[in-house]
Amino acid sequence: MLEKFAPENIKSYTKSQLNVLCDELRVTIYDTVMRCGGHLASNLGSVESTVALFYVFDFPNDKIIFDVGHQCYPYKLLSGRYSRFDTLRQAGGISGFPKRTESEYDAYDTGHAGTSVSAAIGLAKARDLKGERRNVIAYIGDGSFNNGLVYEALNSLKILNTKILIILNDNGMSISPTVGGMYDIINQIKESGASESIRLLESFGLTYLGVKNGNDLEEMLSAMQEAKDLLQNGSVLLHIATKKGKGYEFSEDHPTGTHGVPPVGSPKDKEYSEVLGETLCALAEKNKSITVVSAAMKEALGLSDFFRDYPERAFDVGICEENASVLCAAMGAGGLKPYYAIYSTFLQRAFDEIIHDVCAQDMPVTFCIDRAGISGADGETHQGVFDLSYLSLIPNLTIAVPKDTEELRAMLEFSATYSHPLAIRYPRAGRVVFGGENKPIQVGEWEYLHKSTSKNGKKVAVVATGERCLIIAMKILKNMQEQGFDFDVVNARFVKPLDRQFVQNTDATHVLTLEDNVANGGFGQAVSMAFMQANKGCAVKNYAYRDEFIPQGNVAALQGEYGVNCKEIEEYVKSILV
Amino acid sequence: MLEKFAPENIKSYTKSQLNVLCDELRVTIYDTVMRCGGHLASNLGSVESTVALFYVFDFPNDKIIFDVGHQCYPYKLLSGRYSRFDTLRQAGGISGFPKRTESEYDAYDTGHAGTSVSAAIGLAKARDLKGERRNVIAYIGDGSFNNGLVYEALNSLKILNTKILIILNDNGMSISPTVGGMYDIINQIKESGASESIRLLESFGLTYLGVKNGNDLEEMLSAMQEAKDLLQNGSVLLHIATKKGKGYEFSEDHPTGTHGVPPVGSPKDKEYSEVLGETLCALAEKNKSITVVSAAMKEALGLSDFFRDYPERAFDVGICEENASVLCAAMGAGGLKPYYAIYSTFLQRAFDEIIHDVCAQDMPVTFCIDRAGISGADGETHQGVFDLSYLSLIPNLTIAVPKDTEELRAMLEFSATYSHPLAIRYPRAGRVVFGGENKPIQVGEWEYLHKSTSKNGKKVAVVATGERCLIIAMKILKNMQEQGFDFDVVNARFVKPLDRQFVQNTDATHVLTLEDNVANGGFGQAVSMAFMQANKGCAVKNYAYRDEFIPQGNVAALQGEYGVNCKEIEEYVKSILV
Repeated sequence: MLEKFAPENIKSYTKSQLNVLCDELRVTIYDTVMRCGGHLASNLGSVESTVALFYVFDFPNDKIIFDVGHQCYPYKLLSGRYSRFDTLRQAGGISGFPKRTESEYDAYDTGHAGTSVSAAIGLAKARDLKGERRNVIAYIGDGSFNNGLVYEALNSLKILNTKILIILNDNGMSISPTVGGMYDIINQIKESGASESIRLLESFGLTYLGVKNGNDLEEMLSAMQEAKDLLQNGSVLLHIATKKGKGYEFSEDHPTGTHGVPPVGSPKDKEYSEVLGETLCALAEKNKSITVVSAAMKEALGLSDFFRDYPERAFDVGICEENASVLCAAMGAGGLKPYYAIYSTFLQRAFDEIIHDVCAQDMPVTFCIDRAGISGADGETHQGVFDLSYLSLIPNLTIAVPKDTEELRAMLEFSATYSHPLAIRYPRAGRVVFGGENKPIQVGEWEYLHKSTSKNGKKVAVVATGERCLIIAMKILKNMQEQGFDFDVVNARFVKPLDRQFVQNTDATHVLTLEDNVANGGFGQAVSMAFMQANKGCAVKNYAYRDEFIPQGNVAALQGEYGVNCKEIEEYVKSILV
Repeated sequence: MLEKFAPENIKSYTKSQLNVLCDELRVTIYDTVMRCGGHLASNLGSVESTVALFYVFDFPNDKIIFDVGHQCYPYKLLSGRYSRFDTLRQAGGISGFPKRTESEYDAYDTGHAGTSVSAAIGLAKARDLKGERRNVIAYIGDGSFNNGLVYEALNSLKILNTKILIILNDNGMSISPTVGGMYDIINQIKESGASESIRLLESFGLTYLGVKNGNDLEEMLSAMQEAKDLLQNGSVLLHIATKKGKGYEFSEDHPTGTHGVPPVGSPKDKEYSEVLGETLCALAEKNKSITVVSAAMKEALGLSDFFRDYPERAFDVGICEENASVLCAAMGAGGLKPYYAIYSTFLQRAFDEIIHDVCAQDMPVTFCIDRAGISGADGETHQGVFDLSYLSLIPNLTIAVPKDTEELRAMLEFSATYSHPLAIRYPRAGRVVFGGENKPIQVGEWEYLHKSTSKNGKKVAVVATGERCLIIAMKILKNMQEQGFDFDVVNARFVKPLDRQFVQNTDATHVLTLEDNVANGGFGQAVSMAFMQANKGCAVKNYAYRDEFIPQGNVAALQGEYGVNCKEIEEYVKSILV
């Protein structure tokens, strides 16, 4: 039924046909996610509401924005993407998030939390000004609903004086269980219909409509029709209680573990997050000032044990990256030693607070930045390829990049003794441990992983930052040594400050920089400038990502394609040394 | 009385002495602001509440955070800074904002809106964990209370399980009148004691206490004591209705115009904001798709006429920079042509939304970035010296910098025909109009303001971006021409993309870059890299601000002191050409 589904026919379906459709959606999503990886539990929970949306509304003329997009698989399957759905999250395939370039049914791209209500208001206002007729819908989970941006949007609904439907898909979970005062309000309404909380929502200009079981198709169909009717008169909040992972027993019981699922049979490396968790626990035992703050990601960041063992010093504030950053700055002002663990791409949300609260006040906050560099299957919105650039411009901030999981451990131990802002960035998986002497961490000091000798007055130094780039450097070294060539390999474990001694003292005639970050404003640019200033005639060439948004795909393949390409680098080195 | 005031004696003051103190505070603030410039109206409004704070609480052991700091003058005057207060906002003098380095009474630095509640929670949690005894207070205006960060903080109050006092100083104004759904809720409570709205606040874990006239000292004293008592049992929201500009008749009647006041006798140049307003009005008349979004700053940005003439296409969303950015992206997706006008430093708040919503989707949004570069008397938190760096790293974004107000006009006319993300950044005051042929704007094309000829095989090109730096370049040129030297002066009116033709074709042996921005990740670094890649042996030297937070002071003096120094540049040019 799903295979031949066309949105324009759904209105003639019987209730039992619609139920079959729901079953087929669930099976397809489950099978695909097991093979391709992806978001399982939230997509299983949104099946009935999405079928009801198609039954009642008229896409693509009506517009819907999914926040953050973790529930858009049923929508994708019903809007002409069934036949390509087996390419989910693969290079060139269907995105795990809404993508305007993928289908006219996708009205607005998402991936970061809390944008949907603002975006719906903006699209609705455009409709009004252009005199168009269409409904605009924001579909948002209760986790995202905590984000400050949603509140700013609700606050502006009356100002922009337009009509939208907000569907609040309430499963009580973001990636971790949803927390905080706002969720207490939402939950009170759900549990007991607390009328004052409903009237609060009405103050923002919303008519409230509740659905007790958002996984009951009949209930959803009639509520959706009612919401559509009410929408003629003004904005509506349709609050539906759903079960995350609905229909997949293991997922229903384990919504956190099945939020994002790797493909079956994925290799399991030592993850940086494991080392983060272990090391912070060990440090916290000795140092009672250490606190940890997370924005709804504690499990994925390796912090479950810390939260279990030090509950009084561990804070999950929900998807509120800005608040987490200011809390850390203030805890620092109050004499604590806070650690803020977060994904690289989500830290962008706290950019101003890193500058204004943490660094301008020179607070002893350590940012533990996971999923840095290309992150792979999640695509454009999740690549952690900007952090070296947006952090390098901030005064007072030191930026460290470990060469492997063991160096992360050493850096964290160092951080406990460091009383200024510090950012440590690393990818998800640790693939190698380089070993060697593991010199103690000194701010701004790099280390040689390999030293070569000059030949014909030419000498190349490959200065790479982070494990992925050092693996590339060492691989090229091995290849070339077999061909009789040699060059220096340097572990640039600090991106800021740079190692001025190295710049002064290296006898390399050619320096190549490698980084898992965009070229603009990044590590290589800073190294170029340092050599330009040193005025020693050393040529510098930067390998970093070109100025484009990087789509989903295999990490190593994307690295090569977007600017850090083993073969090119090897050929360039050879062209110098020959 | 104020002259000899010491916080430890206030508890023995009679009511009439306290009233005299209030009067003296008002007079001192008025006199100082007339001489030094600064925030007048909000500081006049906070006099009584601040005296009550000192009467009831015990600073500096108790901690207070002012949000955004526009009401901290009475606090500064009462905490040992009376004698130095005549240096307000001057180089080396008293800051217009709280500054930990200035006094132990200042617990946390502010300047951007909405941080106070998070900061208070963080400080209170530090107190709890360290077993200290002190009260922690957030003092916030109703304008800041709109910001999403405040909501995120309120949301986390229960999670962090601590006790703070929030004083909501409600004068119905941010810089412009306060707007939006949340303020309707607050205002309902103020006007009619709407009990459901109060219960909402209680859902966040706050006990509500209202004061009808926050400029009545007796009322304030008893309410403050009550708040302190209630604080022993849990967090408290003390909602005080005050009059912005209280006690200064002109200010009471003109709270927007007297929010920030320049010193009497300041020179009045043609401001970039005037040109922005005029040009957008003219463009909007022809192009019905043009919309304008502002975050509570429409007057200062020159948009009053636009809001009057095109009210259906002009939106002031309050201090909600992130929401404004997403609204613009979505309006673009809906077929409109949105302009987002904002100060450089405040745009930092929307960093993620510029990337994720505007640029990743390649939306036709134009950012009109005012107060770019060093902004002067407001100090560290208000310098617009990071934007060229944090914008340059974003794919799909074009960055333009007009050489004068006339070129801003040309760039805005160009922007109306441009269907991709565009940032135009400029300082407040326009000092000169360079004239010349005013070539049509082409993306990435620079122009020569002066062409020289080579001498002894040496040729210098000074490539400067923005009016201030071009004024410096032309001034040095004039000086040096009188001494028989000559060099090229280039108006780098696009910072991204760079002018590749110039890089290829210039016959300069030495290029100097000048920018009103930090060096890290900025314009000069990108130019260095471009020449490094072009491999033509041209030396590049960058003049930009060094890696520090820049304090308050005179703009031109700070420029010279932090890295763009006329004399140094002139000497360097001379050293090349001699």
